[in-house]
Amino acid sequence: MSSLLRTLLCGLALTIAATAAVADDGLWMPQQIPQLGDELRKRGLQLDPKQFADLTGFPMGAVVHLGGCSASFVSPQGLIATNHHCVYGALQFNATPQNDLVKNGFLAKTMTEEVQALPDARVYVTTNIEDVTAQILAKMPASDEERAKTITRRRREMINECEKAGGTRCLVASYFDGAQYLRITQMEIRDVRLVYAPPLGVGNFGDEIDNWMWPRHTGDFGFYRAYVGKDGKPADFSRENVPYQPKHHLKISTRDLDPGDLVFVAGYPGVTERHSVALEVEHDEAYDLPTAIRYRQLLNDVLQARGKDNRDIALKNASRIASLENYLKKYTGTLESFRSIGVLEAKRKEEAAIRAAIANDPKLTAEYDAAFGELTKLLNEQSATRERDTVFGWLYTASPMLSQANTLYRLSQEKTKADLDRADDYTERNRKRLAASMTRTRRSIEPGSDRAGLRLFLLEAAKLPANQRIKPVDDALAATGATGTEAQVDALLDKLYASTNIGNADIEKAMFEETTEQLLARKDSMLDFAASLRKFGAENDRRNLARAGALSRIRPVILNALRVTRGGRLYPDANSTLRVAFGTVEGYAPRDAVRFAPQTDVRGILEKDTGVEPFNSPKKLLERARAKEFGTYADPELGSMPVAFISTTTVTNGSSGSATLNAWGELNGLAFDMNWEGVGADYVVDPDVTRTIHVDSRYMLWVMDAVDGAHNVLRELGMKPVF
Amino acid sequence: MSSLLRTLLCGLALTIAATAAVADDGLWMPQQIPQLGDELRKRGLQLDPKQFADLTGFPMGAVVHLGGCSASFVSPQGLIATNHHCVYGALQFNATPQNDLVKNGFLAKTMTEEVQALPDARVYVTTNIEDVTAQILAKMPASDEERAKTITRRRREMINECEKAGGTRCLVASYFDGAQYLRITQMEIRDVRLVYAPPLGVGNFGDEIDNWMWPRHTGDFGFYRAYVGKDGKPADFSRENVPYQPKHHLKISTRDLDPGDLVFVAGYPGVTERHSVALEVEHDEAYDLPTAIRYRQLLNDVLQARGKDNRDIALKNASRIASLENYLKKYTGTLESFRSIGVLEAKRKEEAAIRAAIANDPKLTAEYDAAFGELTKLLNEQSATRERDTVFGWLYTASPMLSQANTLYRLSQEKTKADLDRADDYTERNRKRLAASMTRTRRSIEPGSDRAGLRLFLLEAAKLPANQRIKPVDDALAATGATGTEAQVDALLDKLYASTNIGNADIEKAMFEETTEQLLARKDSMLDFAASLRKFGAENDRRNLARAGALSRIRPVILNALRVTRGGRLYPDANSTLRVAFGTVEGYAPRDAVRFAPQTDVRGILEKDTGVEPFNSPKKLLERARAKEFGTYADPELGSMPVAFISTTTVTNGSSGSATLNAWGELNGLAFDMNWEGVGADYVVDPDVTRTIHVDSRYMLWVMDAVDGAHNVLRELGMKPVF
Repeated sequence: MSSLLRTLLCGLALTIAATAAVADDGLWMPQQIPQLGDELRKRGLQLDPKQFADLTGFPMGAVVHLGGCSASFVSPQGLIATNHHCVYGALQFNATPQNDLVKNGFLAKTMTEEVQALPDARVYVTTNIEDVTAQILAKMPASDEERAKTITRRRREMINECEKAGGTRCLVASYFDGAQYLRITQMEIRDVRLVYAPPLGVGNFGDEIDNWMWPRHTGDFGFYRAYVGKDGKPADFSRENVPYQPKHHLKISTRDLDPGDLVFVAGYPGVTERHSVALEVEHDEAYDLPTAIRYRQLLNDVLQARGKDNRDIALKNASRIASLENYLKKYTGTLESFRSIGVLEAKRKEEAAIRAAIANDPKLTAEYDAAFGELTKLLNEQSATRERDTVFGWLYTASPMLSQANTLYRLSQEKTKADLDRADDYTERNRKRLAASMTRTRRSIEPGSDRAGLRLFLLEAAKLPANQRIKPVDDALAATGATGTEAQVDALLDKLYASTNIGNADIEKAMFEETTEQLLARKDSMLDFAASLRKFGAENDRRNLARAGALSRIRPVILNALRVTRGGRLYPDANSTLRVAFGTVEGYAPRDAVRFAPQTDVRGILEKDTGVEPFNSPKKLLERARAKEFGTYADPELGSMPVAFISTTTVTNGSSGSATLNAWGELNGLAFDMNWEGVGADYVVDPDVTRTIHVDSRYMLWVMDAVDGAHNVLRELGMKPVF
Repeated sequence: MSSLLRTLLCGLALTIAATAAVADDGLWMPQQIPQLGDELRKRGLQLDPKQFADLTGFPMGAVVHLGGCSASFVSPQGLIATNHHCVYGALQFNATPQNDLVKNGFLAKTMTEEVQALPDARVYVTTNIEDVTAQILAKMPASDEERAKTITRRRREMINECEKAGGTRCLVASYFDGAQYLRITQMEIRDVRLVYAPPLGVGNFGDEIDNWMWPRHTGDFGFYRAYVGKDGKPADFSRENVPYQPKHHLKISTRDLDPGDLVFVAGYPGVTERHSVALEVEHDEAYDLPTAIRYRQLLNDVLQARGKDNRDIALKNASRIASLENYLKKYTGTLESFRSIGVLEAKRKEEAAIRAAIANDPKLTAEYDAAFGELTKLLNEQSATRERDTVFGWLYTASPMLSQANTLYRLSQEKTKADLDRADDYTERNRKRLAASMTRTRRSIEPGSDRAGLRLFLLEAAKLPANQRIKPVDDALAATGATGTEAQVDALLDKLYASTNIGNADIEKAMFEETTEQLLARKDSMLDFAASLRKFGAENDRRNLARAGALSRIRPVILNALRVTRGGRLYPDANSTLRVAFGTVEGYAPRDAVRFAPQTDVRGILEKDTGVEPFNSPKKLLERARAKEFGTYADPELGSMPVAFISTTTVTNGSSGSATLNAWGELNGLAFDMNWEGVGADYVVDPDVTRTIHVDSRYMLWVMDAVDGAHNVLRELGMKPVF
């Protein structure tokens, strides 16, 4: 790593002006932190800022990725701290009618009691990082479509080479919208076990009602352990495996945390749009978000109605509904904050600032203007078919069966291509993942709900304007011979669900291996419909590829102008790679005459507790809280047991479980949510109201010690139980 | 007044210990304020506390009663400031299809443009007060029923004597639950005109959504003017009348108001239960409040459903629904605060404290124990039939037609008695009021809703336990000959609504004058049913009378013990007479990690405004607020235009419109609501969270000056317009 990393850092150093003020919105690459060192030291940082640049050293080497979540090693024996909602699937997977682990929580008193998390659970430990920008971007073809294909092919080649040795998962990540590419080598640990999770009344206290909300009282934490073969290398789950011994782990903190204290969040934020241009924000505000909300609401209503008087159907649809509702809330909040923060206006100001900042540089201005013009054209082209493309995508979201059929059909086609040229999900490397994803999708299939959902979007397709029709849908509806849209849609649905084996695990498994011809010979109604839609989809894919190629040229130019405007201090949008956000513990004023303090304590649990889910704390917790039995964990200033806190750092989806470190680099908590008022932060951060919500390490320790008796875990964390 | 008042004050002085701390929960009789003088002076009072005791002097003489609301004179020309929701009826009454005064507000640019408020609008100005305890309680009969009757008769006699001269309205009010009686003489001004009210988007900004809530941004103010005959005496509405010239009026304040400042609320709080015993609170918490909520919800659902697809019906039911919802919210909040404040526990502690405080006084202890034992017995007796008595009462609430029929039937019976012995509503003195109340009830009659509501409670009556049956209902149901409860109820309803003229104004007016025989000869189905229920009701009334007689003996004993416990500093429960509450401008923490500031400003209006009712501020207000055009009215510390503030004073229903005075006795605002967290304050005040919500006088002036151009009103208030 080191030589290439140095090159990268030097490159950045050239453009970072030391005087520029840095806001707390940053999702910095760890390699950029040394450049912010002076400021961080002034704010109280006790670590050497240079340490952050060493991704395999302390503390960055302790921070790991779980795929959808972030996490960190907290003991020399591979103990991993993350959010309760990140170990939730493992609790579900191991729950039995006799022991409802989801409700009761789980505690392995010894290592032998630890259970497999989920068959496809993974822990990714970064072991190397290289700048591969030059190789990726060398001698680009002129055509944008070819450009995109070439970049994909080169990334694949580098990944394959990197993964050859086995036991690793590599990625070539694009930073600054394509200006820079880094190859990241990760050790892929495949034996992940559940160690401990508190009861639902702690780990999910408040559930959907409190989701996105501050003040919060959720003990959103849980523990995994990483296991490897006796040779220290990743291995499939086996009782012979031994705990992985990380080079570095974080020390859990019992240190007092006060308003104004500096904290860091280290994790793997997924995707942000902070570097979008105003026109994109305008499209999102005017169309994308309202439509995302409207369609989710429509589908949610249908799924809810299906399960209203049928508990089996309700359970089948539960995870789809949970996801719909989570994003409904997020998108609604995002739209609200677009308005309250004035996101579009902020973007327009930013663009004016860019033009002002580069005005004295005619070359940069010319490049920027050209890029901006081209981007505007691309975005407007994209908008021209947005209604059609949105409805097309929702056909698959609304019907897991159609989605499943599409995957099988596409797989049969992609298999015929060279692996390097296949769509990402269909490469050999991703074969297992694809199979696992199909299994997951299959579990959520409920044919009545599937049909009701597909019906919604076939009707939407029928309503599309004349210049945005989905021809294969039109053809299929016309072919029914029925009169009137509703009759046609219902006739088509009768046909689609009449003779399909989609959803049958055994048959799907057979289909997974078949050629396109074999699949079509089955005369499966849903598969045939998926096949008929595919040509249309492929044409869309091709257009998207050409657009992606163009964007990979254009966006770096725009980002470069933004970097100049920011005095060189620019962090790349989140891309599911390791980032560090810094900020302070700080409250905020959500509205006139209301002030939120930055810390909650157990008095708030006593206030909220109703004894009924989702506000049903364990009896022991309530007793201890009422009796103020806080052992050594209480917060002196609060005079109570802290539960959660907020900071001016920012996070996004994927950040869940991120280590929150104090000035000494100790684990002071885990990030688990962003606040409602700051939910627009994926686009623009308003420092007055954008906050990350963290569970306090002292609460974690108290629950373990005083409520759940997880003394073995506590000892492994280097603590002495006091209860 | 003066000699009797001095007696009273001396009596109190004997028992008030100067050292006892006084909490801000007090709803003090103005005559008690001098005794609190030292403390108030320490807290910043600039007035001489003795002034309060002079009810016809300054400032108390400026504080008037409007019946349901409180108000105050604010100019030498009889201008009266009160809440917007207190002038709402006058706006409705004067609204035309061409000019929706409710929505647009109203401004008389000259006195001749002022319109009659409502035909039965009244302004009551206190002119004299006498202690009549000795006369009322002299030589009481032994029987409790006779005791109650005697007290009523004596009060009536004193009232009649007082009102003989004409132009006055007198009352003999009971204080300290019957320990003391004061006769209050009030000038009854009958010509009340509407001067000015801001638009609905100011006066009712936030409506039901914000009702009971802090932070608040409602400009809940409006102005009346009192008119009298040219001789200075009360007269019926006439263009010949002249503005009443009060001896005293309050000066509106532009003085800065800050957190920690002392304020007074002077007004006519209706009813509180602060001196209830624990057993009563227990009954209220376990039965009365939950039932009040449940039955209101049931009826509300039925009325809402009736109006769902029919705007005419919805309008007819609107005021009933508004009232149901207002109390639903209040009672729900009260129950919540019973739990959060621990009202029952507080009451039990209080009783333990009483016993401890009087333990050394065997006589007092013996009296208290005897009274407490008797009260417990009475309350338990009352509880034994509570389900029946509650349902019986709801028959009339649910069916305005049955209520109307009952009033007519009862009137025909009461008319045969001597005036002194009649039930209060049926005396000659209250004849006009009764007629006005019948007119109001008639306006809300919607036969379909009436029937649906009555159906609910006939079904409830049918469900009553065997030992709590309402015999006339049982008989009426059995007489239908139908089988099954629902069939019987529906058959009875068919009959009741088949041949009734209740609701017909002309026929009701004729009935109003008829004898019982004449009424029964009409064979009106609803009237006959009301008559059949009346015997049962009369028996209930008789029992209640006996209980009231007993309570008038018992409660003073219990209150006396409480007074001793409080070091002599005890204020009587509210009884719709003039009271003064004092406290400070102070925020509170409604829940963990949340702090409410004690002042809101127009930035909050900009946040809340959606352009859609009830968050639709006038355009001009929004423009001025955005441009920060605050003239001379802004608050220096807020750096903005203050809108509302909260104080540690307490209020209850009837306090609406109460003058809020600063330390100099200037009008700094108007009380218009209590906060959600303190809604249990009718029972127990939690000083940490109980607050009164006031509109700030500076906001009133700014709206008048900068938004509504009410410069004439402003000048009359002694201000110079700056916009």
